[in-house]
Amino acid sequence: MNGADCVVRTLMAAGVDVCFANPGTSEMALVAALDRAPGMKCILGLFEGVVTGAADGYARMAGKPAVCLLHCGPGLANGLANLHNARRAGVPLVNIVGDHATYHRAYFPPLAADAEAAARPFSHWVATATAAETIGHDVAAAIEAANAPPGKVASLIVPANIAWSEGASVRGVAPPPAAVAVPTDALRRVVEILKSGEPAAVMLGGSSSLEAGLSEAGKVAKLIGARLFGQMFNTRITRGPHLPALELVPYNVDMALEKLSGLKHIILCGARPPVAFFAYPGKPSSLAPPDCQFTVLAGEGEDGVGALAAVAEELGCGKISRPAPRKAAKPATGVLTPESIAQSVGALLPEGAVVVNEALTSGRNLFAMTADAAPHDWLELTGGAIGIGIPLATGAAVACPDRRTVCLQADGSAMYTLQGLWTQARENLNVTTVIYANRAYAILKQELVSLGVTEPGRNATDMMDLGRPDLDWVSLAKGMGVEGIRVRNAKQFNDAFKASLGRSGPFLIEAVI
Amino acid sequence: MNGADCVVRTLMAAGVDVCFANPGTSEMALVAALDRAPGMKCILGLFEGVVTGAADGYARMAGKPAVCLLHCGPGLANGLANLHNARRAGVPLVNIVGDHATYHRAYFPPLAADAEAAARPFSHWVATATAAETIGHDVAAAIEAANAPPGKVASLIVPANIAWSEGASVRGVAPPPAAVAVPTDALRRVVEILKSGEPAAVMLGGSSSLEAGLSEAGKVAKLIGARLFGQMFNTRITRGPHLPALELVPYNVDMALEKLSGLKHIILCGARPPVAFFAYPGKPSSLAPPDCQFTVLAGEGEDGVGALAAVAEELGCGKISRPAPRKAAKPATGVLTPESIAQSVGALLPEGAVVVNEALTSGRNLFAMTADAAPHDWLELTGGAIGIGIPLATGAAVACPDRRTVCLQADGSAMYTLQGLWTQARENLNVTTVIYANRAYAILKQELVSLGVTEPGRNATDMMDLGRPDLDWVSLAKGMGVEGIRVRNAKQFNDAFKASLGRSGPFLIEAVI
Repeated sequence: MNGADCVVRTLMAAGVDVCFANPGTSEMALVAALDRAPGMKCILGLFEGVVTGAADGYARMAGKPAVCLLHCGPGLANGLANLHNARRAGVPLVNIVGDHATYHRAYFPPLAADAEAAARPFSHWVATATAAETIGHDVAAAIEAANAPPGKVASLIVPANIAWSEGASVRGVAPPPAAVAVPTDALRRVVEILKSGEPAAVMLGGSSSLEAGLSEAGKVAKLIGARLFGQMFNTRITRGPHLPALELVPYNVDMALEKLSGLKHIILCGARPPVAFFAYPGKPSSLAPPDCQFTVLAGEGEDGVGALAAVAEELGCGKISRPAPRKAAKPATGVLTPESIAQSVGALLPEGAVVVNEALTSGRNLFAMTADAAPHDWLELTGGAIGIGIPLATGAAVACPDRRTVCLQADGSAMYTLQGLWTQARENLNVTTVIYANRAYAILKQELVSLGVTEPGRNATDMMDLGRPDLDWVSLAKGMGVEGIRVRNAKQFNDAFKASLGRSGPFLIEAVI
Repeated sequence: MNGADCVVRTLMAAGVDVCFANPGTSEMALVAALDRAPGMKCILGLFEGVVTGAADGYARMAGKPAVCLLHCGPGLANGLANLHNARRAGVPLVNIVGDHATYHRAYFPPLAADAEAAARPFSHWVATATAAETIGHDVAAAIEAANAPPGKVASLIVPANIAWSEGASVRGVAPPPAAVAVPTDALRRVVEILKSGEPAAVMLGGSSSLEAGLSEAGKVAKLIGARLFGQMFNTRITRGPHLPALELVPYNVDMALEKLSGLKHIILCGARPPVAFFAYPGKPSSLAPPDCQFTVLAGEGEDGVGALAAVAEELGCGKISRPAPRKAAKPATGVLTPESIAQSVGALLPEGAVVVNEALTSGRNLFAMTADAAPHDWLELTGGAIGIGIPLATGAAVACPDRRTVCLQADGSAMYTLQGLWTQARENLNVTTVIYANRAYAILKQELVSLGVTEPGRNATDMMDLGRPDLDWVSLAKGMGVEGIRVRNAKQFNDAFKASLGRSGPFLIEAVI
C-alpha cells in the first residue's frame, strides 16, 4: 500500500467519511487514493478558507473529527484564518497538507515554503511524515491529537514522495478519551459558593452549553438565582423555549463591564474568563469586576455536564420542575433593521435549525431576540477571524443534511469567503444565507468614534465604507449558482425567509438595512 | 507624535504615497494617522490576499516599495499566499501588521495569534515594534530591508498600544543601495564561454529582463547565436517587436527537458537555475542537461544590465544593428480556444499595456504568440500560489493609471481572490480581465493522467471539475460593480476586447473555451 492509500484508509478506519478539499499537484497521489475510496465523500472548496471553515462547522455538528486536504505552504496559508477559528472553537480537525517531495525542496522550486512553520501558530499539533513505512502511525497520531478534549487542530504535512511510495500500513487509532470526572472538592467548592448567596454567575462553554448541560445548569440557576452565561463567542449552544436563556458577554467593553458588574463569583464550566476582545486606552482587559473570584468547575477534558448534574443534585434541585416553554414574538413588520430581522428570525426559525451567526454589529441583539425561537443550535465566530459564516454554514449543512442551516452574515465578513456559496450549490445544501447589507465595516466606524474621530476624512472613510460601488449579493450568489433575492422591508424579508425554509438547496437573502 | 503618526510619516518621507489596506480594530490608531495624511492614498481590498497581491503588482511597476496594512495574525494569514508570490518576485514590500496591545496578549483574547511566527516563513525580514520611542527606527529598518536587492518582503508587527502611545520621532531612511558592478573576471568567464561556440543560453531575470538588459542581451544573442531565456515564471519582462523574443522554460517537465537539451552552458543574469515546478516519480528535479554548466553573470544585488552591456562591448557587438521590428499576426477568427485568444491578444494589445498572466494551462502558448505584440510589460505568478492575477492587475493599474492593464486569468485561480474586482471598480482602474472559462482545474486533470489515472472516478472528478454549477463570471463581476460580457467565439472576443481598451475603468470578458 502506498502512503496516500494508508492516509485515506487510516482516516476511514477511525470513522471519517467526509474530506473537505482543495488539492493541488503535490496531492495527486492522495487524490488518486481518495478516488479509490468511494466510502469517503470529497467536498471541494474553491478557496482554502472555505475548506477549513467548513471543516470547523462540520466538526461542531458531526461530533467526530473533520478532515481537510490542502496544498503546500501557501495553500495552507489561505486556510489558516479559519483554522485559527477552529482552534479557538475547540473542535477536532485533522488537516492534511501535501508538500513537495522531500528531495525536491533543496531545488527551491517556486512553491517551496515551510509548511510546518506556517501551520504551527494555528495548530495544536504539527508533524511531517518522513516515510511511507511510518505514515500510518503519523495519521493515527494526528487523529488522536485532534480527539484530545475539547477538540484540537492537528496538521500533518505529507510530502509527495511519501504519499506515492509503497510500504505503508494502516495503524489502529485509539478512541477519543472519555471526559474525566470533576474531583469532589471542586464540586464542593462550587456548591458552597452557590449556597453563600453572594452574586454568582455560571459561565458555560464546550459541551456544557448543549442540551444536557443547560438543563442541569437551568435547575441550579432557578433554585439559587445564579445567572447563566455563555461566552462572548460560542462554539455551539443548544437553544429553545424549554431551555434556560443564557446571557452572553457583550463585545463592547463598557456594556460588558456593566453586565458583569456586581458579580462576586464567576464559575467556569468549560469556559474561559471573559476578556475584552481588543484593548483600548484606559480600559481594562479583564471584563469581570476587580473583586470577582473565578472558580473552575470543569476545565479542559473534564466532564462539565456531569459536574453540573452533581452540583444540581447536591443543591437538591431534584424537585425543580421544568419551566413552561416560552413563546416567540410574532414576525416583525415595517422597516427592515437588524432588530426587525432578529425578531422575524426568532419567530420563523424552523425547529431543528442550525443557526450560524457572523452578523457582527448587525447581530448585537440577535441572540437575545431569538431566545424563544423553536429549538435550534447556535454557532458563532469563535476566534474573531472574520469570514467564517458562509463556510461554517456549509460544513454544518454537510453534517446535518436534514436540518435547515440559517446563516446570519455581515456583508463585509461575507466577502472574505464568499466562494463557499458555490460549494453549497454543488452539494445542494439546505442553507438560507441572510446578508446584512449595511455596506460598511460598521464595527470599525464605531471603533474610530471611540478613538475620538467623529468626522472621519477621506482615507478613513475609504477604509471603512463598502459602498462605491455597493456589493450586489444577488448577482454574486447567482454567479455561484445560488438563487437569491434582495429585500428592503420586514414583510419582504419574512416572505423570502419563510419561502427559503421549504426549499431543497441553498438560498440567499440580501437584507438592505 | 504617536507611534501611528510616526509610521505614516516615516513611510511618506521615504517616498511612499500608496497604502493597500484591510485594517481592523487594532489598527484604528494607524487608520486615524492615515486620515491625517492626505498625501497618502489608501486603497481598500475586501480580502487580505487582494491587498498583498495588489502591493506586489504595484511594486513591480512603480519601482518603489509597496506598503500593506493588515490586521493581526489571522488577517496577515489571509495575505500570506500572495506575500509568498511577492517574496519570489523579488519586489520591495513593507507589510505593516497591527496586533493586540502588548499587555493584552496575556489575556488570550479570541484574535490572539503569533503574528511574528506567521509572518516569518513568508517574509525576508520580520520585527515587532516594542515602544513608540523606537518605532521610527523600526519603520526605517523595514523600508531599508525591503529595498535590499532585488526587493524583499519586510513585515513589521505594530502592537496597538505602541501605535497609540506618544513619544515617537521620524527617522531618516537610507536610499536603496545601487547595484554592485560585476567583477571583471566574472565578465571574462562569460565572454570566454560565449566565444567558445559551445551551445549556450543566457537566462534573464530581475531588472535584466527590462528594456535595457534585453537590448544588450539581444545584441549578444544575435552576434554569438546564444539563446535567450526568461525563467519559467517572471516578475516583469518588457516586450515588443523591437526587442528580442525570449524563450521561457516550460512548466511541463518533459517539454522543459527537451527545450533545454543540448545546452552546454546556461549563463544566469538575475535568474535562478531552472527547476521542475513539482517533483514526479522517476523525473529529475533539475531541468538542465546533466552536463550543462551554470555560470553566474550577475547575482542578487549585482548590476546585470551593466554586465550584459560590458559583455556585449567585449564581444564587439557595437556594430550590431537593431533588427527590424516584427509584425503581429491578425486577430483570430472562428472557434474560441486558448490559441485563438492568444493570437487575438497579440494582435490587439495596445501599446504600453501591462499584461498580467495567470492563465495557467490555458496560457501555455500565450507568451510565444504575443512576442510580436505592441510594446508592453509582462507580469506573472512567480511563486506558484494561485490567486495572484486579479490583485496583481489591480496593483499594476494603480501604479500605471495611464496604461491599460490586461489580466489573462484562469477561472479556478480567479476564484481565490475575485474580491479584487471590487477594488478595480472603486478605484476606476483601467483593467481588462479575460477569464478563461474552462470550468476545471485543468492542470490537475493533466497531472492525474501523468500519474496513470486516465479515467478518474467520482471523488477525483469532484475535486478537479469546476462545473455543477458553472461559475457565471458576468454575474460575479456585476456583483462587484464591474461590467462584463460572455463571449463564445473569436469574433465576439475580438469585439469585446477592442471595446474594453477604450473604456475608462475595469471590464471583464468571460471567454468560454
